[in-house]
Amino acid sequence: MTDRRLTIVGAGLAGALFAALLARKGWQVDVFEKRGDPRVKGYEGGRSINLALAERGLHALKQADADGPVMAQAVMMRGRMVHFLDGRVELQRYGRDDSEVIWSVHRGDLNITLLDIAERAGARLHFHRGFVDADFDGCVARYRDGRDGHVEAVPFVALVGADGAGSQLRAAMDAYRPVGERSEFLDHSYKELEIPPAPGGGFRIEPNALHIWPRGRYMCIALPNDEKTFTVTLFLPNESPGDDVPSFANVRSPAEARALFERDFPDALPLIPALEQDWARNPPGLLGTLTLERWHLDRRAVLVGDAAHAMVPFHGQGMNCAFEDCVDLARRLQGEDDLGSAFAAFESARKPNASAIQRMALDNYLEMRDRVDDPDFLLQRALEQVLQERHPGRFIPHYAMVTFMRIPYALALARSEIQRVILEEATEGVAALSEVDLAAADAAVLESLPPLQDAAPP
Amino acid sequence: MTDRRLTIVGAGLAGALFAALLARKGWQVDVFEKRGDPRVKGYEGGRSINLALAERGLHALKQADADGPVMAQAVMMRGRMVHFLDGRVELQRYGRDDSEVIWSVHRGDLNITLLDIAERAGARLHFHRGFVDADFDGCVARYRDGRDGHVEAVPFVALVGADGAGSQLRAAMDAYRPVGERSEFLDHSYKELEIPPAPGGGFRIEPNALHIWPRGRYMCIALPNDEKTFTVTLFLPNESPGDDVPSFANVRSPAEARALFERDFPDALPLIPALEQDWARNPPGLLGTLTLERWHLDRRAVLVGDAAHAMVPFHGQGMNCAFEDCVDLARRLQGEDDLGSAFAAFESARKPNASAIQRMALDNYLEMRDRVDDPDFLLQRALEQVLQERHPGRFIPHYAMVTFMRIPYALALARSEIQRVILEEATEGVAALSEVDLAAADAAVLESLPPLQDAAPP
Repeated sequence: MTDRRLTIVGAGLAGALFAALLARKGWQVDVFEKRGDPRVKGYEGGRSINLALAERGLHALKQADADGPVMAQAVMMRGRMVHFLDGRVELQRYGRDDSEVIWSVHRGDLNITLLDIAERAGARLHFHRGFVDADFDGCVARYRDGRDGHVEAVPFVALVGADGAGSQLRAAMDAYRPVGERSEFLDHSYKELEIPPAPGGGFRIEPNALHIWPRGRYMCIALPNDEKTFTVTLFLPNESPGDDVPSFANVRSPAEARALFERDFPDALPLIPALEQDWARNPPGLLGTLTLERWHLDRRAVLVGDAAHAMVPFHGQGMNCAFEDCVDLARRLQGEDDLGSAFAAFESARKPNASAIQRMALDNYLEMRDRVDDPDFLLQRALEQVLQERHPGRFIPHYAMVTFMRIPYALALARSEIQRVILEEATEGVAALSEVDLAAADAAVLESLPPLQDAAPP
Repeated sequence: MTDRRLTIVGAGLAGALFAALLARKGWQVDVFEKRGDPRVKGYEGGRSINLALAERGLHALKQADADGPVMAQAVMMRGRMVHFLDGRVELQRYGRDDSEVIWSVHRGDLNITLLDIAERAGARLHFHRGFVDADFDGCVARYRDGRDGHVEAVPFVALVGADGAGSQLRAAMDAYRPVGERSEFLDHSYKELEIPPAPGGGFRIEPNALHIWPRGRYMCIALPNDEKTFTVTLFLPNESPGDDVPSFANVRSPAEARALFERDFPDALPLIPALEQDWARNPPGLLGTLTLERWHLDRRAVLVGDAAHAMVPFHGQGMNCAFEDCVDLARRLQGEDDLGSAFAAFESARKPNASAIQRMALDNYLEMRDRVDDPDFLLQRALEQVLQERHPGRFIPHYAMVTFMRIPYALALARSEIQRVILEEATEGVAALSEVDLAAADAAVLESLPPLQDAAPP
């Protein structure tokens, strides 16, 4: 590539990481961000204060030497801590040991770390510059300063949209040439609440876990933060057939929220002292899946992360997938001769994988809210561990393929589907691991799962 | 099966067909329907006055000897009549000739035909009996008469839910044991309008076609009715980034609707004289995809059609798929020894297929609104026809596999994905059919598509 200049729209997680990756390779990078500099005025970001960092995201951070500072503040989550209605709790490990865990990281801190690295590497960051629209024929984009309304026109060589699910760059691309956009919204929404530190300054509940209160048709979760708080997220249907099933239609007031917690989450209630205030302040958030037919406009614009493929949060892979996008696109920009080919190769490589993790994220909601307290589910998880030991490199649990490995998401999905059938057949009519016909399960594994290194991506 | 008794909830299309199929095999069938008898007071049904009947649905009607009366009133649709913005129209055939067409049928007439057949075969139809809830332990269901509010308790052996996307039986099953329900709503909705007959009593536009006005981000369609009218459906985004893209947020009043038609559908506007009245009367309809983890509750209840897997209407397969469900379930009830095994076998056979047509229906929206006026698309359609001729039984166009055949939807989807890659690669950088490297395309077909009779369902 001779002309190594790019303009990034959005300085959130994906935009900042991508700027860092390219600037470190000597590209001239300009980043335009609607909000102010979080390092000056504190992080103004919206929702989801903490995020789960997994192997894919961590590997991407390593490419920018950002893993050190990030991991210093990350909180290890060993597994799911399931809170039953009767008060019993149970830790379900994510992996085999502490080498297979995920990490709770603070969005604001992570963003600041990445912005610092990008800037040190030479990226120019322009805050208070919200993307308005672009003249794609003249290669000029316009940005508005939200403080005084001033609009500035800035030429570009190519635009990279890292401006999230509500991407304005995507809207401009779509107005110029339809991108084939489709959004599907789940009939459930979420509400964020907070567990503050304990009076003595420590965590109020086990810090090294992702807490889940599964209730069949809905659930609560809580993720730890470095500052000893937990962010609690309640997921509920928007509507419900009757008043016996809670929904955002019949749990509206703070008092109704308290009554719901008293009945369904009694052990969580005393941990959330400002329940009523949190409830009144935070509007319910939507849960959507965004798919596009086209992620790029020839050599002039391309979308990454949520701007291209926003997903529901239930696999904790939105950020991880966005970071994988950044690494992939940066690598192709180094390897290809022109921007258009790099964008096209990026899109065709990443689209099936984004689509696969979007589906798996939807499926995981059901698993979290409905299945983690189901004996059949637990039996299948136990069998997964056994089959993994007996068939290393061949049978790898679904969660591990997605979370602890970097194989393409589409390949993980395809293998998971085969494995699910094997697990279901082996556990049908069986109550305990000792009753499973392991020889039959072994035969099924050997017949239908090629060793992973030989497995061609679908 | 020794105890051949079943209760069907819902006497719509699926419920009536299923009742007919079982009653004709000697089962004792009771059908409970919330609405009144359409044969007495006229059809009170809600939306989508006409529907596209394809091979799968037609085959199912034949199993109940319902095809004769239905086809007598059906209107043949040979293809898509595409209306360009400049007034040009173009017929794009669905298949090779008039043996490969679909049929526009009137929902009310079809329903009445099926109810007559079911009743003649011995099914007992109970109208004005809306399902309220069920005591699954005691095997008693309750129904309410909407006219006087009277509630009646009726024992059942097993319940079959054919009560549509908003199924009350599903809600009752879910309350008893979660069914793992998920609904995803598209960010587009629809509005129905009508083209009346011409002053002389004939059709105002070509009757033997499905008319489409594709406009990239949105579209209008029109399907013919036997009584010389057309039902027009406008699909628009719910929201739009700016006022230059129409949406239900900025096209609200009848006057705004007229302005939209003046600008974007000028040739359709004079055909819809009551545009303002239709607009004001019909609320926008939602477009959703419903998926369940479980379709049945052991031997006591099972769901079919929209109640189990409602889909968006863009492939015109919702009714066809529901009818295929009915035939499959009826066959298994004959073959299996107990209801529970029949329900389980039905669910595991049909679920992957329902899931496949749900995805294809979503994808087809984009094709209809955005791609039918795209030269690349038309080139790929032309190439499909050539490859079909050169590789009979091996390369079959996507639309044909779904519409003119009865191979499992999941198999059609898997083969379509392979074919799509072949078509894209063969037409990349090519402007006309004569420039396509047919030898390379042939090789790709032979390598990656087994003959259909040998193809194992995925």
